[in-house]
This record gives sequence, structure tokens and C-alpha cells, in this order.
Amino acid sequence: MSERFNAIQWQHDHLRLLDQRALPFTQTYIECWDSAAVATAITEMVVRGAPAIGISAAYGVVLSAIRRSREAVGDRRQAMLADIEQLRLARPTAVNLAWALTRMTACLQGLGQNPEVELLALAKRIHQEDIQANRRMGEWGAALLADGKHRVITHCNAGALATGGFGTALGVIRAAYAQGLIEHVYADETRPWLQGSRLTAWELQQDGIPVSVIVDSAAAQVMRLCNVSWVIVGSDRITANGDVVNKIGTYPLAVCARYHGVKFMVAAPTSTVDLALPSGDVVEIENRPRREVTHIGEREIATPGVAVLNPAFDVTPAALVDAIVTERGVVLNPDQKKLAAMMKNAV
Amino acid sequence: MSERFNAIQWQHDHLRLLDQRALPFTQTYIECWDSAAVATAITEMVVRGAPAIGISAAYGVVLSAIRRSREAVGDRRQAMLADIEQLRLARPTAVNLAWALTRMTACLQGLGQNPEVELLALAKRIHQEDIQANRRMGEWGAALLADGKHRVITHCNAGALATGGFGTALGVIRAAYAQGLIEHVYADETRPWLQGSRLTAWELQQDGIPVSVIVDSAAAQVMRLCNVSWVIVGSDRITANGDVVNKIGTYPLAVCARYHGVKFMVAAPTSTVDLALPSGDVVEIENRPRREVTHIGEREIATPGVAVLNPAFDVTPAALVDAIVTERGVVLNPDQKKLAAMMKNAV
Repeated sequence: MSERFNAIQWQHDHLRLLDQRALPFTQTYIECWDSAAVATAITEMVVRGAPAIGISAAYGVVLSAIRRSREAVGDRRQAMLADIEQLRLARPTAVNLAWALTRMTACLQGLGQNPEVELLALAKRIHQEDIQANRRMGEWGAALLADGKHRVITHCNAGALATGGFGTALGVIRAAYAQGLIEHVYADETRPWLQGSRLTAWELQQDGIPVSVIVDSAAAQVMRLCNVSWVIVGSDRITANGDVVNKIGTYPLAVCARYHGVKFMVAAPTSTVDLALPSGDVVEIENRPRREVTHIGEREIATPGVAVLNPAFDVTPAALVDAIVTERGVVLNPDQKKLAAMMKNAV
Repeated sequence: MSERFNAIQWQHDHLRLLDQRALPFTQTYIECWDSAAVATAITEMVVRGAPAIGISAAYGVVLSAIRRSREAVGDRRQAMLADIEQLRLARPTAVNLAWALTRMTACLQGLGQNPEVELLALAKRIHQEDIQANRRMGEWGAALLADGKHRVITHCNAGALATGGFGTALGVIRAAYAQGLIEHVYADETRPWLQGSRLTAWELQQDGIPVSVIVDSAAAQVMRLCNVSWVIVGSDRITANGDVVNKIGTYPLAVCARYHGVKFMVAAPTSTVDLALPSGDVVEIENRPRREVTHIGEREIATPGVAVLNPAFDVTPAALVDAIVTERGVVLNPDQKKLAAMMKNAV
């Protein structure tokens, strides 16, 4: 299951991306023949989800190598570094993008005149490692739910579509459901982009996992009335102290979870952990276009001309997080020391 | 200002309602010639907002009296009581509806063969009293903000459109803005019906009050980063202990406000206070149609066939409320005793 979505497909000499803006109503693909097309696809959210944009960017570097192969060697490296910089700037908040590009750039340094083969092998490795990491997170996360049958809330889409396959938060939910540990999933619709009602609901529906969509602001009442025991989300960047940057709306979920005695789990690969930043206060939060809030497709849904504030992410302080689950294991009540120790462990 | 909206207009022999489903894009009116049409308009949210549906239902009783005037006296009273019952069932959660109908029914008891004139006078009085109550609430609420310039968050639409005119929460905001006490208003868009981005933003824009629309789940981050000092909302029912039933999404706002040290104000006329119910736990919460979440107009925006949970209201416990403002004054840190005392006061 769930790898079947194949949202990111390397096709011999180009990258094919499932256009997540149109899901689940139409399944169309965007074909990227150069790194600029990948950068645009990331900015415009053809592909989204921190791990997925990291993987896509890695393939973008391969496209850059292919595209620049006709240029002179000296110019080529410089042109490739410019392409990589363009990819890095495609979206600012998720660290997986920078992480993948740093790995690709380091590989590039040691390569000769035809780096495409090695770069492609590395991009494919990054992709496969992510899927394996998702599977491991699934097992670790499910183990935290081993005490019973749970009703959980998830936010945004941290599923197969947001990753190399299987998913982070949805990976945990899939693994736990397979073990009989999950009774029902409430999926926040996740305004403005509706990742929850369009993507998460679609993924879970296809896997036969019972899911109800709720508006984001109904989550607190659902916690109060529907016997919810866990909130399970992904992350775009986890800072050294355990603060969690994730889709706008994650932070109030965490505040309300604590108020209700509901546990809060963050599932993310170690590529999401950014030890270079001391706390979430210093992470650049992307503000997305006004139109995401004021329109659905071509239809205007808000007062014409009104000002909009549209931050794409928020910061959940570590103190509200009960567990961070990575492919290397579980960090309970995360802090700087525990996260640093986890990052030092080999898998 | 703001009474100009005239969302509820008695037109000599029928009721004209501004269709709030189409606002602010088109201003169309629904003409109601009998009480059944008013009941339908309330159920389908042509008119919404607790005070506004109470006023509309009062006019609905007048229409019933006119319509039934050709029937025999004995049958007429029975038919009118059936009409009133239909109006009462149009929406379950707001108590103002039942309150207005109880007042109209009590008046009806003492009337003779042609009750239309007296009933119309009472309906107009209920309408005018609500506007006056809004004005008084505005002054009381603004006094709570007298300590400086504030940035506030409001949810749903508790404005001129939701009341007889001027507004409850927006009445406070209007009065405070006129006194130079408000710097900026953040309006939650308020899914699924978008009362915030369609109605509140529109009302404030027309009054020249600075407003930014945010998605509901961005409110916590806005509290954290934008120096918000108050959340100001209306209510559909306040129970004897001070619990506040209001539009879905009010409760998480209150939880997050407390977490951030932001004050939480509820502005509502005494017709919203229901001393007959001990707490919010026993209030019937309306579940609205699935389609409100899955569609925008004719366009499907969620995974086809997915289950939806769509409660229209939630319950904010009194412990999270800093002030309840009615036309009779301010109740700080509300509890059963203080609310009962306030309700005993004459205006």
C-alpha cells in the first residue's frame, strides 16, 4: 500500500511529479526537464511535504547535471551551484530541502566530468532511505500506541504524498492501524491548502482506515467529546531544543492537546532535525500568497480587497511535545540534550 | 454606520431578509410571506447569528398571525402555535430563538381576534431593544479596553449582520475603535461557512477599521507574534454557570488565549443567557450538513465520499472566560452566582 502513489518518479532522463494541487480530483503529472522546473514545482506546491521536497530537489540536481553537461567543465560547476541555490530558495522553512542539497553538493565536489550517474545514484538513495526511515518511524510510533485502541487527530498531510512513500505521521498511523491499535482518525481539513481533506483523507480512504474530516477549529471539541488520545503530526524542521516547525495549525493543536491531556507525537526523519538552529524562534516562517486564503480555484471566497496574513507554518514549543519519533527511535519529552544524543546514534 | 446593513427588514406586510449566504459578492434579499419561509431561511442560514434569528423568528410569528387571520379563531391559535413550534425547531443551539418565541407566545395569549398589530409592535420592540443592547454592550466592552491600543482577534461574525444592527463582539470593536482603543483586528475566516472572511471582514472594511483575515488555525501564532491582547467573540447561548456556546472554533481560541495570557471577552445580550441550563455540557450542539465542509458552492473540495463531522458550535468553559459583557454590564470571571445576580438587575 501507499508507495503506490508514486508522487515522485524518476523517468530515465527527467522527473515526473504528481500534481498535488489537483488531487484527489484529477491525477495529472508535471514533467520536469531541468532544475528550474523542479524549483518552480516546489514553490508552487506541485510537490509538498518536507521529505518530498528534499527528494525532489535531489533529483533536481541530477537534472542540472544532465542539462549542464554540454557546457564547459569550469562553467558547468558554477552553473550547477547556481541551479542548486535556486532550488534551495524554492521554499524557506523545511530544512530537508537544504539537507538534501547539501548532500548532493558534497557528492558533486568529488566528481569528475560526468557526475550525472553518481548524482542520480545518490538521489535514488536519498529517496529509498526516506521510505525506509518512514517504515522504521511507523514501527517506533506504533509501539507508543501499544497500550490500546486509539482515536487520533492528524493535521495537514504527512503521508506517502509528503515523503518518499508510506509517510511520517501517516506512516505511524498506517503501522498502528495494521496492528489493530487505531480505531478512528480525525483529519483536520488544513486550511488554506486543504491537505487534510484532499490528501490525507484520500490516502487513508484508499487504505481502508476509518477517517472523518473536520474543520481545523473543531479539533478541540473533538478532543473533548470523542475520546481522542493522541495527536500525530509530521514536521518541516525540528530545532536543537526540540521545537517543532510544522504546518500552520499544529501549534494550537498542541496547546489544546495539553489542555485536554491528549498526547502529542511528532514523526519526522532525522533529515528534519536542524541542530544548527537553537530554537524555533529563529526559523524563517514562509508567508504564502494571499490568494490561497481568498480563492478556491478561480472562485473568490473572501471579501474583495481585504488584507490577509497567511503564514504557512507555526512553531510548537518542545514543552508541548510528548514524543519525537525518528527512524533512530523515540525521544520522549524532547530537549536539547536528548535530541543531540539521538542524532549521534547510528541507525 | 453599520445599521445600514438592514439585514432584517419588515416591509409593511412581509419580512425581507438579506441573503447572507451570498455576501459579500451579491446583495440579494429573500422575501418571506409566511412563517414557514422564515423557518427555512433560519435553517438554511439566509439569516444567522443568535440575536438575528431571534428577531427574524419574532417577525415570523407576525407573519403567522397575518396568514392565519382568515381561519376560525379556535383553529387559528392552534395553527399559530404549530407555526411557532416550527420556528423554534429551525435551529437548536442558539437560545435567542426560543427566547423571542416565548415572548411572542406570551403576548399572543392575551390578544383577541386580530393579534397582528400587537405582535408586530412587539417584534419591532424586540428588534429595537437588540440594537440598543448592542450599543450598550459596545460601551461596556470598550471600557474594558480603555487601558491602551489593542490588537484583537474575533471569530465568526457577531456584527450588524448577526444582530438587529451594530453587533455584539463587533459592536464592542466598533465602539472601542471609535475611541481610539483598537489598532488592528484579526478576523478568523471561520470555516466552514466563512462568516469571518465574508461577513466580518466586509463589515469592518466598510467602517474603515483595519482588519486582516487569517485562517482559523493561525490564531495561536498570531497571538504569539502580533501582540494580541484580547479575543472578542459573541455567543449563541450562555449557561447558568457561565459556559459559552458559540461558533465552532471559539473554544480552542479560548484555550490558546489563556495559554498566551490574552484576555477573552464574550459580548452577548441577556437574551442569550439561559439560566435554565446548568452548564454547556447539556446544550444541544447542532451538526450541520457534510456538504458545508466538502463543497464551496458547487465545487467539491474534499475527498469524494469521505466522512465528515461538522459540529456548528462548541462550548467554552466559564473558567476560560475573562469577561461576559451584556447590555446590563460586565461580569468578570463569570460563575453561576455572578450571572444570576446580573440577570436580576434591571437595565
